[in-house]
Amino acid sequence: MRILVVNVNTTESITQAIAQQAQAVAAPGTEIIGLTPHFGADSVEGNFESYLAAIAVMDRVMSYDQPFDAVIQAGYGEHGREGLQELLNVPVVDITDAGASTAMFLGHAYSVVTTLDRTVPLIEDRLKLSGLFDRCASVRASGLAVLELEQDPQRAVEAIVQQAELAVSQDKAEVICLGCGGMAGLDEQIRQRTGVPVVDGVTAAVTIAESLVRLGLSTSKVRTYATPRPKTIIGWPGRFGR
Amino acid sequence: MRILVVNVNTTESITQAIAQQAQAVAAPGTEIIGLTPHFGADSVEGNFESYLAAIAVMDRVMSYDQPFDAVIQAGYGEHGREGLQELLNVPVVDITDAGASTAMFLGHAYSVVTTLDRTVPLIEDRLKLSGLFDRCASVRASGLAVLELEQDPQRAVEAIVQQAELAVSQDKAEVICLGCGGMAGLDEQIRQRTGVPVVDGVTAAVTIAESLVRLGLSTSKVRTYATPRPKTIIGWPGRFGR
Amino acid sequence: MRILVVNVNTTESITQAIAQQAQAVAAPGTEIIGLTPHFGADSVEGNFESYLAAIAVMDRVMSYDQPFDAVIQAGYGEHGREGLQELLNVPVVDITDAGASTAMFLGHAYSVVTTLDRTVPLIEDRLKLSGLFDRCASVRASGLAVLELEQDPQRAVEAIVQQAELAVSQDKAEVICLGCGGMAGLDEQIRQRTGVPVVDGVTAAVTIAESLVRLGLSTSKVRTYATPRPKTIIGWPGRFGR
Amino acid sequence: MRILVVNVNTTESITQAIAQQAQAVAAPGTEIIGLTPHFGADSVEGNFESYLAAIAVMDRVMSYDQPFDAVIQAGYGEHGREGLQELLNVPVVDITDAGASTAMFLGHAYSVVTTLDRTVPLIEDRLKLSGLFDRCASVRASGLAVLELEQDPQRAVEAIVQQAELAVSQDKAEVICLGCGGMAGLDEQIRQRTGVPVVDGVTAAVTIAESLVRLGLSTSKVRTYATPRPKTIIGWPGRFGR
Amino acid sequence: MRILVVNVNTTESITQAIAQQAQAVAAPGTEIIGLTPHFGADSVEGNFESYLAAIAVMDRVMSYDQPFDAVIQAGYGEHGREGLQELLNVPVVDITDAGASTAMFLGHAYSVVTTLDRTVPLIEDRLKLSGLFDRCASVRASGLAVLELEQDPQRAVEAIVQQAELAVSQDKAEVICLGCGGMAGLDEQIRQRTGVPVVDGVTAAVTIAESLVRLGLSTSKVRTYATPRPKTIIGWPGRFGR
Amino acid sequence: MRILVVNVNTTESITQAIAQQAQAVAAPGTEIIGLTPHFGADSVEGNFESYLAAIAVMDRVMSYDQPFDAVIQAGYGEHGREGLQELLNVPVVDITDAGASTAMFLGHAYSVVTTLDRTVPLIEDRLKLSGLFDRCASVRASGLAVLELEQDPQRAVEAIVQQAELAVSQDKAEVICLGCGGMAGLDEQIRQRTGVPVVDGVTAAVTIAESLVRLGLSTSKVRTYATPRPKTIIGWPGRFGR
Repeated sequence: MRILVVNVNTTESITQAIAQQAQAVAAPGTEIIGLTPHFGADSVEGNFESYLAAIAVMDRVMSYDQPFDAVIQAGYGEHGREGLQELLNVPVVDITDAGASTAMFLGHAYSVVTTLDRTVPLIEDRLKLSGLFDRCASVRASGLAVLELEQDPQRAVEAIVQQAELAVSQDKAEVICLGCGGMAGLDEQIRQRTGVPVVDGVTAAVTIAESLVRLGLSTSKVRTYATPRPKTIIGWPGRFGR
Repeated sequence: MRILVVNVNTTESITQAIAQQAQAVAAPGTEIIGLTPHFGADSVEGNFESYLAAIAVMDRVMSYDQPFDAVIQAGYGEHGREGLQELLNVPVVDITDAGASTAMFLGHAYSVVTTLDRTVPLIEDRLKLSGLFDRCASVRASGLAVLELEQDPQRAVEAIVQQAELAVSQDKAEVICLGCGGMAGLDEQIRQRTGVPVVDGVTAAVTIAESLVRLGLSTSKVRTYATPRPKTIIGWPGRFGR
Repeated sequence: MRILVVNVNTTESITQAIAQQAQAVAAPGTEIIGLTPHFGADSVEGNFESYLAAIAVMDRVMSYDQPFDAVIQAGYGEHGREGLQELLNVPVVDITDAGASTAMFLGHAYSVVTTLDRTVPLIEDRLKLSGLFDRCASVRASGLAVLELEQDPQRAVEAIVQQAELAVSQDKAEVICLGCGGMAGLDEQIRQRTGVPVVDGVTAAVTIAESLVRLGLSTSKVRTYATPRPKTIIGWPGRFGR
Repeated sequence: MRILVVNVNTTESITQAIAQQAQAVAAPGTEIIGLTPHFGADSVEGNFESYLAAIAVMDRVMSYDQPFDAVIQAGYGEHGREGLQELLNVPVVDITDAGASTAMFLGHAYSVVTTLDRTVPLIEDRLKLSGLFDRCASVRASGLAVLELEQDPQRAVEAIVQQAELAVSQDKAEVICLGCGGMAGLDEQIRQRTGVPVVDGVTAAVTIAESLVRLGLSTSKVRTYATPRPKTIIGWPGRFGR
Repeated sequence: MRILVVNVNTTESITQAIAQQAQAVAAPGTEIIGLTPHFGADSVEGNFESYLAAIAVMDRVMSYDQPFDAVIQAGYGEHGREGLQELLNVPVVDITDAGASTAMFLGHAYSVVTTLDRTVPLIEDRLKLSGLFDRCASVRASGLAVLELEQDPQRAVEAIVQQAELAVSQDKAEVICLGCGGMAGLDEQIRQRTGVPVVDGVTAAVTIAESLVRLGLSTSKVRTYATPRPKTIIGWPGRFGR
Repeated sequence: MRILVVNVNTTESITQAIAQQAQAVAAPGTEIIGLTPHFGADSVEGNFESYLAAIAVMDRVMSYDQPFDAVIQAGYGEHGREGLQELLNVPVVDITDAGASTAMFLGHAYSVVTTLDRTVPLIEDRLKLSGLFDRCASVRASGLAVLELEQDPQRAVEAIVQQAELAVSQDKAEVICLGCGGMAGLDEQIRQRTGVPVVDGVTAAVTIAESLVRLGLSTSKVRTYATPRPKTIIGWPGRFGR
């Protein structure tokens, strides 16, 4: 089974870190392919950049020329998942949904700890539309930007632990979701420090994507995610212009 | 005052029709500029096309080289409004929100009548995120595609009236919102046929945009719609690559 | 176009202040008529007084003997708007709804800052029924009574700014609504102090009422706001006894 | 113990019928006093009439010159209960809340069957504000006006049974609430015909009011229903002008 | 009239205290029978113990061999009420619902003060399913275990008052519900200390059960609480194995 | 890895069918152990039976004397999952949650098709508490009892397909969840007939349980699902009496 894990940022080192985490939990026989978009921001932290990434992720997946069995969109709280679901016949798993859905099996309420405060409303909105917000105790910002996470992982751990502890004590969270693809690999340290289960959306998404493939399930095509109707698409140099 | 009204489709005739409706209700001294995106689908009817339009609308607005006072995104239920709000300092009004918000001053519940069934969930999701869904009685599809509306306006009226009547009698709607920018201009006929107020999102958006400008109000920049942080944006030929 | 702006309090000086603000933002050709109820409390700060004002506002409007194009009920969180909508064929705009609806075009969440704590639940309830509460971050009380606002505007500004800043920092509001008709005219000072958009319900209502009239839209009469059925009304000295 | 049961309509015969039903279920030692408002519509079927009744009920209760232990407002879905709660120190029970609250002890979901369709939104709104709407399966209109109920009780039973049966079979209601004070006394017939428990708000309210008195409980005065502040009330001939 | 009041804990002294409170408010002619389950935990403070109590309460009621008119399940936030409703034809009142339902007649919002923090989610979940959570301001834990309440009532009062005051000042509660059957009898002291109405679920349940019996109302049998279908039940020594 | 799959019914043949389906999708190296409760109803179709099953499932798991890595509770919409989560340190997956959670990755809305109408409210309530109800389009009953499913699988398929088609066409479901453990194995036929993805909760639960184990995640013990406190448990013959 081959699973594409697509970064939303154009920073190649983040793609590699994500793919490495994904491969580490993948079942024997699962091949993880990390993809970096051909265009967009080096880090995605807001709506404009996220919309650009939405299209860039679709562009990157559609220009991948080998067969694959599932796609993981590895950005937390980003736009675009529904577009991929329309374009593809294989399952699409967004790490936002994967993290929340997994956390809900582990406790009565979960919190997300993310990067900057400005991304909090995006995450909340994505969780609301996914129908996974009812048991979300809070979405909290560590205050670190995406690229800062990568540059100083230890500082990242400290900042995330601080918010995670507040989420548990004040917001009554029982599980923590890491709210950024770039936090992949930090879960174990944070679990040890906080004493609660910590879910990394990337690894959770790998197991969910594998499960859907094994169960022979993929996106329903009867309504919302039906294949796009034939259209005249002008002015776009990439794959979408058919 | 100059207001940009941006079509989400790349069909120029729809832009002209929308701009004409907008100008017809504009206050004396308001100049309406209709803009057509430089790339994207001739008609937007689903998530992929809508995400592409989101970026195309931002690209079109950012490449407009004259001063302007407000922007109207003239697609019903489409992605992208939040990105525009980040990029601009002038007010941004989406016709989805404009229509619903106006309808709520006119009755206890409203329904939207749109084009194809596949776009219904997009509209519902946009209204939910905008916080304007509580008094939405239903979103109904006329079954006509965007381009069919233009080709046969009389057939469009019939199909919309049929759904509007069901919305009133079965869903208990008291007001009807036209759920497509391409329906601009049909409101009066439908009102006469159904006996309930009919809101065209485009004209409603013009008065709202004018009002915000007159009141000296624009998008809050303290959190969700703060100006994007400086980023390295690669691979994008247009205005966003700074 | 003539718009009636009806105070809910029987304090004439508040009516004048409100009408002055309203006229200041009105379009050329719009005549604002400030009306004071013939009976009721000098300031409305609770349910009993608000119910009395509801009837007093209807009585005042029905006894106005000139033609008019729209009515604004200038009390924040008060009862009665639905009754006016039944009695009249012209648009009715409550400043509670006008403020919230306008704020939602400007940010992801808004807070209301009002007078006394006891009025907070009234405002929350009105916003819930109007379907405009989903993106309300909080309703906060400045602690000042209605008449204190008038007597000491500078103290009012300080008290409002204090709560507005807490609304932004703690409740994550991005826009502030002034939660009392008597606060009309303070918006600019508060905006300068807080750095976020500040919406005055009275001026917002003027632009909305004008817009509805310009668009040819008025209250739907098919169900909730249908004209009252002919009834025998006894014991009431005013206009309602027909 | 003396309980005032206040009709919202000015039709004396309805007051008598309500008071008779109330007395029939009252505990030994409970005296029911039926009161008719001094002004207002002979039947209340909409917002204007309901707001007028709200004030008329307060006026009637405040002008009652004997001691009493509790007040029942005997209109289904009407305005005004919160005003009474402010003005009085004894418990206030609205039959809307009494009916719904009682029904929730009897089944998983309940429906209300009321008079005219135009009153449905009022009832829904009152139940929402009272926090008793979550398990409301539907509010259905029998199509009969208040005064028609009185004139032809058998026709009323038929019309209510028809809607009650639809509520059970289609809306999945398990209990029926009679949605009009004027339906008092019809519950047993409707129960026999439908096979589900039928709650009459008036009799339910009597037992709740008695219970609150026996338990020594009354309205909280710390916030929403605090006694009105001293005010100058002008132009009102009745008891409120102090 | 005979009402069974069933403790959820197997501690006999708690049963006696509950029954004593219940009898104290019962109407003349009402006989209260306190029952202790034949099996289960001495105090119920979590899901496992609560599920065991659910069955133990049903077992105890079904093995009671005298006629009775209503049953009160005297545990706050415990499982099992729906099972009793299926098994019996007489009304079943859970003190969780009785307390919340009564509190809602007394103020705009109520809070529950319970024992240990771990029971808070159970109470919240029970109130949500009962449709009585909308106006719940908070559920707060006193930090005292069930058996500690009994051993040191004065300490219990202090701990409950502390949380009740926070509920009023911070969460905007206007009424307090005692969130444990073992708190029966403490209401008056807490009311005096906090100045807000305090509802004891046990005594509230007595008046509700009496009211339902007097009104001739009992559980609807048309759907959710229909009598169990005939089944082969194996391996159970008690009454359920038929 | 060893996973216990516990039937809620005491019918051994259902256990075998469930275990066989579970084993069929299990990863290499996963051993499925099917367990039948030692007591309870042969088929669970209501609250009383479900509460009994809740305890019976806990009893059965606690009396299993070999090590295991996860537990699946194989009843759709049944009580008890939270108790297991308290008692165990390994992950617990309820097929209700597993089915819904998986369906949400496949479409915008899902419906559940279950057995008898009386079980519909149980399923809805479980989904609400699990926070997975927002995108549930409907829960529909096939009208077949649990044991009828087993006796006549072809009739079961027909009845389920009929409701599934209504769910898609009327309720706008895009995915179907099989709402009974006894439906395991029918998914492929129903998918072929309806053209939408069909999720069997049992097989979905197997992949989720495996995933949680592989990710090293288990139930949070900080609050709701903390290990039960030491208690004196009387009168219970099984494992719980410690």
